[in-house]
Amino acid sequence: MAEYTAPLRDMRFVINDLIGFERLQALAGFDEVTADLSDAVLEEAAKLASEVLSPLNRVGDTVGCKWEDGVVTTPPGWREAYRAFCEGGWNGLAMNPEFGGQGLPKVLATAVGEMWDAANMAFGLCPMLTGGAIEAIEQHGSDALRATFLAQLISGTWTGTMNLTEPQAGSDLSAVRTRAVPNGDHYLVTGQKIFITYGEHDLTDNIIHLVLARLPDAPEGTRGISLFAVPKFLVNADGSLGPRNDLRCVSIEHKLGIHGSPTAVMSYGDNGGAVGYLVGELNRGLMHMFTMMNAARHAVGREGMAIAERAYQKALEHARERVQGQAPGAGPRATIVEHPDVKRMLMSMKCQIEAMRALAYVCAVEYDTAALHPDADVRARAERRGDVLTPIVKAWSTETGVQIASLGVQVHGGMGYVEETGAAQHLRDARIAPIYEGTTGIQAGDLVGRKTLRDGGHAMRELIADMRATVADLQSQGGTVALARDALAAAVDDLETVVAWICGAASDPRLPAAAAVSYLELAGLTCGGWLMAQAAARAAAAGEGDDFHRAKLASAGFYAAQILPRTAALARVITEGSALVADLDTALL
Amino acid sequence: MAEYTAPLRDMRFVINDLIGFERLQALAGFDEVTADLSDAVLEEAAKLASEVLSPLNRVGDTVGCKWEDGVVTTPPGWREAYRAFCEGGWNGLAMNPEFGGQGLPKVLATAVGEMWDAANMAFGLCPMLTGGAIEAIEQHGSDALRATFLAQLISGTWTGTMNLTEPQAGSDLSAVRTRAVPNGDHYLVTGQKIFITYGEHDLTDNIIHLVLARLPDAPEGTRGISLFAVPKFLVNADGSLGPRNDLRCVSIEHKLGIHGSPTAVMSYGDNGGAVGYLVGELNRGLMHMFTMMNAARHAVGREGMAIAERAYQKALEHARERVQGQAPGAGPRATIVEHPDVKRMLMSMKCQIEAMRALAYVCAVEYDTAALHPDADVRARAERRGDVLTPIVKAWSTETGVQIASLGVQVHGGMGYVEETGAAQHLRDARIAPIYEGTTGIQAGDLVGRKTLRDGGHAMRELIADMRATVADLQSQGGTVALARDALAAAVDDLETVVAWICGAASDPRLPAAAAVSYLELAGLTCGGWLMAQAAARAAAAGEGDDFHRAKLASAGFYAAQILPRTAALARVITEGSALVADLDTALL
Repeated sequence: MAEYTAPLRDMRFVINDLIGFERLQALAGFDEVTADLSDAVLEEAAKLASEVLSPLNRVGDTVGCKWEDGVVTTPPGWREAYRAFCEGGWNGLAMNPEFGGQGLPKVLATAVGEMWDAANMAFGLCPMLTGGAIEAIEQHGSDALRATFLAQLISGTWTGTMNLTEPQAGSDLSAVRTRAVPNGDHYLVTGQKIFITYGEHDLTDNIIHLVLARLPDAPEGTRGISLFAVPKFLVNADGSLGPRNDLRCVSIEHKLGIHGSPTAVMSYGDNGGAVGYLVGELNRGLMHMFTMMNAARHAVGREGMAIAERAYQKALEHARERVQGQAPGAGPRATIVEHPDVKRMLMSMKCQIEAMRALAYVCAVEYDTAALHPDADVRARAERRGDVLTPIVKAWSTETGVQIASLGVQVHGGMGYVEETGAAQHLRDARIAPIYEGTTGIQAGDLVGRKTLRDGGHAMRELIADMRATVADLQSQGGTVALARDALAAAVDDLETVVAWICGAASDPRLPAAAAVSYLELAGLTCGGWLMAQAAARAAAAGEGDDFHRAKLASAGFYAAQILPRTAALARVITEGSALVADLDTALL
Repeated sequence: MAEYTAPLRDMRFVINDLIGFERLQALAGFDEVTADLSDAVLEEAAKLASEVLSPLNRVGDTVGCKWEDGVVTTPPGWREAYRAFCEGGWNGLAMNPEFGGQGLPKVLATAVGEMWDAANMAFGLCPMLTGGAIEAIEQHGSDALRATFLAQLISGTWTGTMNLTEPQAGSDLSAVRTRAVPNGDHYLVTGQKIFITYGEHDLTDNIIHLVLARLPDAPEGTRGISLFAVPKFLVNADGSLGPRNDLRCVSIEHKLGIHGSPTAVMSYGDNGGAVGYLVGELNRGLMHMFTMMNAARHAVGREGMAIAERAYQKALEHARERVQGQAPGAGPRATIVEHPDVKRMLMSMKCQIEAMRALAYVCAVEYDTAALHPDADVRARAERRGDVLTPIVKAWSTETGVQIASLGVQVHGGMGYVEETGAAQHLRDARIAPIYEGTTGIQAGDLVGRKTLRDGGHAMRELIADMRATVADLQSQGGTVALARDALAAAVDDLETVVAWICGAASDPRLPAAAAVSYLELAGLTCGGWLMAQAAARAAAAGEGDDFHRAKLASAGFYAAQILPRTAALARVITEGSALVADLDTALL
């Protein structure tokens, strides 16, 4: 058995049945997006993921990237895999056709990206970061920058990076100190950046760094930060590579996981200044970053879900093979999958993965709808929805991803703790996702602040209304659908109570801040319950004749009975326990 | 600042105020155990922990143990540290004075053991396993075995191991295949054992392996397993070391964490059979193992709590130093400890550690009371209580320990993912504790089966009655004590509901098995709430004049408002969601 097999039928269930192609075909440019096209894309991607990328996951972990004198060597086999990846056109799947992209819906890119992340999370980071650079240049770059860089980035011939963090400026980018000094048609950039994913590597001939820096006369704080494109090699007018730019990789980090992904310390301008080109407007660099942050955060949330899927597949395979002990109701010498507690662990993994996948895919459709729907009201509404869902996808899926990877270790027992088994790598890899692209605390602050308090809870109430509409739609249903519906209704009550409490607590900003992470978890669980209830209804309508639809009902029932009840506890924790956190004297810690 | 400072005042608060010396002094042999004696022991241990063991924690992780040709070398400095440990008499703190032990209460050994585990978990495993071997030989060994081995093991001159697991026999020891053939006054042991902690090392000249094996004519299953003492070097009549026994370390595992603790694959009898001495009765080896399992499981639970304490100290230190962003209510450029969500994370760590510590210490007093109280009824009741609490201490504290170590990484942000920071090691180390000495699933099965269903819930109802008595005692209190009391009362209701449900579900053994882990978590949370409510009352009685008692009230309040509400969700998950797990067709996974 392959180490990872893309769950194509689960993916298609979300895309075809839960979302439906009519929603995609209503968008400009997607009228020819059909189930046949989608299936063909997914099937091809699945082959690359399981046959090329997944077999390199282990060597990525054990050998990792090597740094020597500023040069980073990726693990054996990665250069060839990256070449195959680019030759397949995968890098530009949802990118602008004007620059060589295929212009397909983001939901397909999400499904395909899930496969890369599950097959080999450290590998998947390279195109993920390149995607961020493409978006920055496409949305904010001059025509000249777009002409110079986009086609090469979209084809994957060059890769891109995001340079935000400095030692004193992590979550707080207002503290950025890297300087950019005007110098003719460009700027000279000087400073050190840390945590630069794929900041240096040997997969491509050039790397385009997107760097946040400050002009000498820029205002203090976030309003004085600008964004620059700083290529590793300067690009001649004919597109060929020119001289090496004044930047280098000082070292790479020794990390808990994702060893195949080089995390670079980058130094700019040691010899006078690295040539950088302004992207967008001066002093609006942070704003420009924010416009592409949704995509990056969504992609990291997808990672959390993807690594959970891989962990689940491995745990299930082990549980079906390992004979141990006597299972109540299954007799002696059973495979451990028959033990009720192992079943519980596995189904808890499976149903939460399904909920996270559905949410990530639905969110991707909102992004496309916000950009491409003919009706401005629909676009605006989709933008609000995507904005609300993004921090939830990011933080809920990554936190849950860590828990699921940890359960994957547990299902293996003692063997799970032995590195050769591979389950431990999933936990080590997964652990970064709640941290980078904004920690869970940052996401929760975004959800409670920008996405809830700023509009007085309007976008959240729209979401709640849609959930209530689902409850109403399913009113006549029985069986598992009714179970999922009633659990959803209770969770929506909790969510509504909390949204009202948060909006009521706005006058003391410490209170929503203290409640934020619990609120995000509550919102994530409820979104999951919403989509699982819809999934149950679709599966019931399709009939229980086959195991696939029976399984969908089983996981929706499990989610309703074993996962969703947590929302009531979270609502109590928020409404009754937040003041205590806000008032806590830190001297007592 | 030291990497780890023993929380002496917290430890004394539990021992002196929450438990009280009158409970210890009522036991045979402990009439001279006073606060002065206890303080002196704790202070000396704290020095060894922070000055000798803690500084070796990192080298244990980075260098680890090396295997070459059957010889295992411990990390640099570990031999000297082990010598200092033995010279201080620490190995025999609560051991039998007849063989050189100091005969002190187990609660002191627990506090001291917490320090070893927090300072250096991989180091602490060596005396932990030796303790298991001592208990086996002391309780079940012949006078000759006791005379040969006990004094050397209690002094730490030799170490001991527990050899249970084989590749096909993990949680299910009935599958053990290692053979023992009678040969004069001893047996010849042949077979392979895996996951043998400190199965080979260079800290001492001899290692005494306690090995589960089967006689050729033994009955199938668990009733055919016997226990043998198999020394690495045979011991001459005068106590000197004789020839090397026929056993060797084949390899050591490459693990996620505890790299300083060698996890050996042991091969016995490659050259005809290793000399082994029967411990206890033939075919009762598993029974003999069970008698010492409480201690081992309690010790692993203590590890979960200890590594959480270390992770908390590190996270708190970082949060007090790291300046980042604007905290609501604290102005710009605040240290991150002022951010409400960071406060929330830190206090969630702190209060759960305090609850786990209290439970582990209280449980240790029950063990001593069961053995040493003059009144047989009190002894019997304490034995029941210790039996109930043991799986809770083990599984709840280790699962919570992993969560807390993971929060410790999160508080550090991106730096937490970089290995040099040290936070990631805590997560890697902590992750073994819910697995070894019986997984969380095994503990939960023990709690629900042997400790609840077998006596019809009697011992659990005794515990619930004690909790209700605490609620009644605190009825007149206000403020934080009242908050803690009311939260406890609600949690006890949930626990009682679930115990009744479990006893009612006994006819279908799949149901309690499906509910087991949630039941254990519910019981752990409620036990924690019980002890935190008592702690709040003691702190309130002591007055809020000093920060220490204010901090105790703050953590009890936080536990009540932010942690305990989970019990309601667990009760619903158990009573409404277990049938779904039990009935799940594994083909649908």
